[in-house]
Amino acid sequence: MIRQLIEKIQKTKAPVCVGLDPMLDYIPEHVLKRALDEFGETLEGAAEAIWQYNKEIIDHVYDLIPSVKPQIAMYEQFGIEGLKAYVKTVKYCHEKDLLVIGDAKRGDIGSTSSAYAAAHIGKVKVGSKSLSSFATDFLTINPYLGTDGVKPFVDVCKEEDKGLFVLVKTSNPSSGEFQDRLIDGQPLYEHVAQKVVEWGADSMDGTYSNVGAVVGATYPEMSSVLRKLMPNTYFLVPGYGAQGGTAEDLAPCFNEDGLGAVINSSRGIIAAYKQDKYKKIGAENFGEASRQAVIDMVADINRVL
Amino acid sequence: MIRQLIEKIQKTKAPVCVGLDPMLDYIPEHVLKRALDEFGETLEGAAEAIWQYNKEIIDHVYDLIPSVKPQIAMYEQFGIEGLKAYVKTVKYCHEKDLLVIGDAKRGDIGSTSSAYAAAHIGKVKVGSKSLSSFATDFLTINPYLGTDGVKPFVDVCKEEDKGLFVLVKTSNPSSGEFQDRLIDGQPLYEHVAQKVVEWGADSMDGTYSNVGAVVGATYPEMSSVLRKLMPNTYFLVPGYGAQGGTAEDLAPCFNEDGLGAVINSSRGIIAAYKQDKYKKIGAENFGEASRQAVIDMVADINRVL
Repeated sequence: MIRQLIEKIQKTKAPVCVGLDPMLDYIPEHVLKRALDEFGETLEGAAEAIWQYNKEIIDHVYDLIPSVKPQIAMYEQFGIEGLKAYVKTVKYCHEKDLLVIGDAKRGDIGSTSSAYAAAHIGKVKVGSKSLSSFATDFLTINPYLGTDGVKPFVDVCKEEDKGLFVLVKTSNPSSGEFQDRLIDGQPLYEHVAQKVVEWGADSMDGTYSNVGAVVGATYPEMSSVLRKLMPNTYFLVPGYGAQGGTAEDLAPCFNEDGLGAVINSSRGIIAAYKQDKYKKIGAENFGEASRQAVIDMVADINRVL
Repeated sequence: MIRQLIEKIQKTKAPVCVGLDPMLDYIPEHVLKRALDEFGETLEGAAEAIWQYNKEIIDHVYDLIPSVKPQIAMYEQFGIEGLKAYVKTVKYCHEKDLLVIGDAKRGDIGSTSSAYAAAHIGKVKVGSKSLSSFATDFLTINPYLGTDGVKPFVDVCKEEDKGLFVLVKTSNPSSGEFQDRLIDGQPLYEHVAQKVVEWGADSMDGTYSNVGAVVGATYPEMSSVLRKLMPNTYFLVPGYGAQGGTAEDLAPCFNEDGLGAVINSSRGIIAAYKQDKYKKIGAENFGEASRQAVIDMVADINRVL
């Protein structure tokens, strides 16, 4: 699976994914109003609004990018109706030939992790049938429970040729509270990184492993160390743009082959029409603002590669 | 919320929750067949089977226990249809006056954690309405991202009088891989425990905080230390029974007031009819086997209190 992502990155010259994290207050008034007029102030109405919003953005950016990263929490908050919009979004992205990274940060013990893996990147057996549900290409997972919580995901990756990104060093301000604490002279995130290499050693797909890592853009000096510790691990990098990470901060996430990282931007792309820079495009043309923001983001990143 | 749980524990004399984790291979043949005959070998058929299975168990145990703990992964694996069965199960448990601990182990950065909190224990704003979705009373969460990933959950707990159980020391064999590593001479799980106390200090509900901790039954010597470190924190304790934890292992999880812990058993209760001990009750009476298993579990635990 990581090989497919790399091919798409090389084709589009865009090592990015667009974070489809539709908060209601990002959605232009006219889109929201239309949905709520039709379905009322209900979970169904909210779900319709986020789906219409996503669709417009996807239609405007799909040819520029290799991948998207829907954050499932933003759909889950609207319950079953929200998750239907998640499924619809994943399907639509696949129709547009985009790879989909499900940002779910799931993680539990053995049989429970197996169930999550089946839900998101695998299949579940019902009688004689094998059925899939959320059907993304990649999934983000949490390592706190250790190997027996992670292995079921790795197993499904192998069976189904899917990919993972394991949280190593996250982009948020308090990520260091536990992740940076020193164990035998090394921060916890480096210990996790070593495990990620171990977990992924048997899932190589070309030069890189299908088991990747989440490494925040906001701590470039740590990215640099992690890049060396995990030479064959692809990084999913959140934190660019709205969270404060700059293109210069991203450089250490890449290998010398210009590969090794896919940079996410959510708000910076999907709510671009709200930024001063793109305001003149107008809220009614929010998809075009997102397109321009993708073009600018890709140029900004390629500048440092 | 924790006060409500304690009252129910005192009323039932049962410091337990039944883990509603319906794997298809736990479900008696006649229940599964009926559902698949009606809906085919589909996600809908599987969802109907787990709902019918849950209902029968709840009907047989609800008067004996204070709480249940559905593991959302076991529903999520059947996609939207599975999650509908989760919602139905939560509602039905509430009708039967049970408190529901949603075992979801969610965790992310700020606004994303807020969305998860809204989904599971809070409400989401849609226009002028505040709507709830999964609507459990408690939620399990993952601390790996630190305070700014946890605080949104704590905030919702305060607004809505709900509860949390933060993963501290999990019951699985490889939980020690990261959780037991020493930082300044103390294992990581103790550092997490100190943070749990801090996060919960402002959410006291009687003698205990609404911010609880997950502490596995399988490491009793660690439970003992954690009990002292977190005197006013309720423990949700997995690992009893099928995972190997005995009643003796549980004793250190309780305070001298006989309170402080709620012990979970999943397979040991819901698939009791498969055990040699209850086999004579028969698969067709699986609910009665579950009832007997609850009675035996409660007696076993009260023996060490």
